[in-house]
Amino acid sequence: MAYEHVWEQYVQHMRDMRGVEEAIALMHWDMRTIGVRKGSAWRAESIGILTAHHMTLATSEQLGAWIEELRTAPIAVWQRASVARMAHRYERLRAIPLEEYKAFVIACAEAETMWERGKSEGDFTLFRPYLERIVAFARAFAKQWGAGAAHPYDAWLADDDPNMTVARLDPLFGALRAELVPFMQDIAHAQQRGQSLPRVPISMQRTAQEQLLALIGFDASAGRIDESAHPFMTAINPCDVRVTTRYSEDDCTSALFSTLHEGGHALYEQRIAPMFHGTNVCTGASLAMHESQARLWENVIGRSPAFWNAHFRTLQSWMPPLRDTFIGHFVSAINSVQPSPIRTEADELTYNVHIMIRYELEKQLMSGALDVAQLPQAWNEAYARDLGIVPRDEAHGVFQDVHWAGGAFGYFPSYTLGNLIAAHIWETMCEAGLGTQLHDIPKIVHWLTEHVYTHGATMHTDAFLDRVCNDTLDTAPFMRYVKDKYEGLMHVGQTPRIQ
Amino acid sequence: MAYEHVWEQYVQHMRDMRGVEEAIALMHWDMRTIGVRKGSAWRAESIGILTAHHMTLATSEQLGAWIEELRTAPIAVWQRASVARMAHRYERLRAIPLEEYKAFVIACAEAETMWERGKSEGDFTLFRPYLERIVAFARAFAKQWGAGAAHPYDAWLADDDPNMTVARLDPLFGALRAELVPFMQDIAHAQQRGQSLPRVPISMQRTAQEQLLALIGFDASAGRIDESAHPFMTAINPCDVRVTTRYSEDDCTSALFSTLHEGGHALYEQRIAPMFHGTNVCTGASLAMHESQARLWENVIGRSPAFWNAHFRTLQSWMPPLRDTFIGHFVSAINSVQPSPIRTEADELTYNVHIMIRYELEKQLMSGALDVAQLPQAWNEAYARDLGIVPRDEAHGVFQDVHWAGGAFGYFPSYTLGNLIAAHIWETMCEAGLGTQLHDIPKIVHWLTEHVYTHGATMHTDAFLDRVCNDTLDTAPFMRYVKDKYEGLMHVGQTPRIQ
Repeated sequence: MAYEHVWEQYVQHMRDMRGVEEAIALMHWDMRTIGVRKGSAWRAESIGILTAHHMTLATSEQLGAWIEELRTAPIAVWQRASVARMAHRYERLRAIPLEEYKAFVIACAEAETMWERGKSEGDFTLFRPYLERIVAFARAFAKQWGAGAAHPYDAWLADDDPNMTVARLDPLFGALRAELVPFMQDIAHAQQRGQSLPRVPISMQRTAQEQLLALIGFDASAGRIDESAHPFMTAINPCDVRVTTRYSEDDCTSALFSTLHEGGHALYEQRIAPMFHGTNVCTGASLAMHESQARLWENVIGRSPAFWNAHFRTLQSWMPPLRDTFIGHFVSAINSVQPSPIRTEADELTYNVHIMIRYELEKQLMSGALDVAQLPQAWNEAYARDLGIVPRDEAHGVFQDVHWAGGAFGYFPSYTLGNLIAAHIWETMCEAGLGTQLHDIPKIVHWLTEHVYTHGATMHTDAFLDRVCNDTLDTAPFMRYVKDKYEGLMHVGQTPRIQ
Repeated sequence: MAYEHVWEQYVQHMRDMRGVEEAIALMHWDMRTIGVRKGSAWRAESIGILTAHHMTLATSEQLGAWIEELRTAPIAVWQRASVARMAHRYERLRAIPLEEYKAFVIACAEAETMWERGKSEGDFTLFRPYLERIVAFARAFAKQWGAGAAHPYDAWLADDDPNMTVARLDPLFGALRAELVPFMQDIAHAQQRGQSLPRVPISMQRTAQEQLLALIGFDASAGRIDESAHPFMTAINPCDVRVTTRYSEDDCTSALFSTLHEGGHALYEQRIAPMFHGTNVCTGASLAMHESQARLWENVIGRSPAFWNAHFRTLQSWMPPLRDTFIGHFVSAINSVQPSPIRTEADELTYNVHIMIRYELEKQLMSGALDVAQLPQAWNEAYARDLGIVPRDEAHGVFQDVHWAGGAFGYFPSYTLGNLIAAHIWETMCEAGLGTQLHDIPKIVHWLTEHVYTHGATMHTDAFLDRVCNDTLDTAPFMRYVKDKYEGLMHVGQTPRIQ
């Protein structure tokens, strides 16, 4: 058969898969935002039914045959990327008997329910047998996927990016830890405490999020903003990209930076080239790349003095209670560095320590060096050692994240990798003269679109860093960025009041 | 194989189908309420993909084999109803080549788009070729489905209820027309004109809808109320039943009666016995039965003087601008009878004439006595003859309903059948002493639940009327109901002001 015809059928199959993905994404979105509590058990069943159907499509013999044919066909580079991405998942799913994989998915659903209950009751022993099942599955899958791998954890890291391995992350994270931890302690020690900001009514905050998203170039006619307990971004379809946030009347910055974070994810999805719409490369290049864009907007741009020098008056017009706040006070408040027990509430420096703790624990869970029963103690020891913190209970400790209950091993490292990549990209942007252009957001977004967003998942993280930043993944740009920023902030107390 | 095991597999298959139905229902709901405009083309594609998958499940050889086995198995009455219902659809879908049915579904999607455009531009010729394709499909399907039927239209009427035929509806609607039309003209002539009510701010109306739904027993923790251009009810799953309404600041009764209508549909869905949840009998017995519950709450109960005698003070507390309105004035305003061009805005008497006009036109379209090209003229002639109205343009005439564009032939009669059935049920309720109990809504809902809602689709309309009302479908209860009500209303001007 002519390869063009095979490609057409392959694309049609991808679109069929995308249609099912849209339905699943919408059912999740609905459940997490405006959904109907009493209907949630039926909703979970429906999501399971569609997920099983999607898995059937993702592992069909016919798809395997098309992949084989297209691998040797004279197709374009982006088409090759699509086929490689599809083949990666196809092979992983086919390596495990369908029934076993379904049992894993069901076990995860059960474990998530028990995680929620155990967390609210503060009782890890309730959750422990469920997590033990998940870990047993994860170890077994790692054996199937990782034949020949140097470390069992590599099989899970490869789920996001086949180039990420323990052999690569150990020295990378080792270097980061060695430089970051003493720096972070110095900053935390030197900063003034007790920076607080005025209360802002939630109705006012709501409008402000819409305005903030518009400011950074989010297309509200191709998306929505809603509320949820845990903020997230989801691309329902290429022209329907939704973000959520949550509000705190006591802390107006909580929603702002959550919106910038999810807004960064959303800009990426909204600005992928239309020619990739409907295919499997219409997404971020990797979890780490996606996270880099969230972090770039949330932290590198969104917590920078330069951004607020340009936009603080605008923020004051959205939130009049801030009209008497000094810009210097605001910038200090949003850049407070302080060890704390909860990852999602951590500042941009200590955040990485939370991730590296999880990385080490996951590695040991996968190798068998650590068992689930030992996890709470290992967690607390790591927090005491690395952050000087003893969680006051398990909800503030080992229970805080849902990832393991959901079977998402190898996911945590992408957060810190995202920070490192964001610093690489920012350094490249500064070399292009954009570091001083934060008053001109369309120019910033234009550069990011051209260099990052438009390409979707047609390049791997490494290829991307090579092509766009002419560099390889490293901790140096991140350390240069944080040193430059936090040393500059030491003098911010003297910033004159504007307005 | 033991039939119990066949039943189990059959139920599992139904649940798989239900999961897909939930996804489709949610995608429709989202598109019609809060959805993202730019994403609608992708959404339509996803709905098409899931619909095709659902059709594959609904026509699978395996399902056919289970149906065959269960037809002779010693299963319970409700199980037999489920199998008969499934077999009915299975046979209809299997009677047409899958590719042809898909072409029909796609043609409908295209025709709906062109209906919207043609309607807004007031140009039937744009829409005409699309509707001609739909009618050609409909006539061809009628031949496949209706082999041996007395009239080609019967095949489409049977989609809702196999007992409804032209041979039955012609005399039924003939009798209704003969009695209703002169009565309706007398009432329209005798009523005072120009009854208007105070404006109520929409935010106040919104809260009132929630309170009204709560009053009639809608479980808000197992459903939602939202806004949409065209109000509707959809059961996303057995514990997630959603209604929508629309607001007019000038006419606070528009949302109220739309809410009572959709609320009637919703009560039916929310109160089906849990043992039927997840099966194909977890729905109304027929479109006509479903409509009867909407009409019962909207008109028979909702526009009755007795209901407002009991609840007008409550309504005034929800909508303070009504505090100086006489109850008699309110009841007159909501019962104004007047021929008008638009079906969905018609009063409960003239409404049936709108339906009978469509019934006659559909019958002729299916038999070939009328072609699409002649439709606008035939429409206007019928409106002039039966209602004394010449629509001022096609948007107020032949273009007003989307049903034909969507290929929904045989649907219109269910609205008037619903009115007739509602009157049967109301008469039975009055015999049970409930006619004077409209102050005690839980008692009303309890009766309806026990006699109607809980049974879902385990009985046909006729079996239901026989068992619950000890009667056969007829126009007499409806005529008794309207005569009793509208003759009583003639004196309502003297009703004293309450409060």
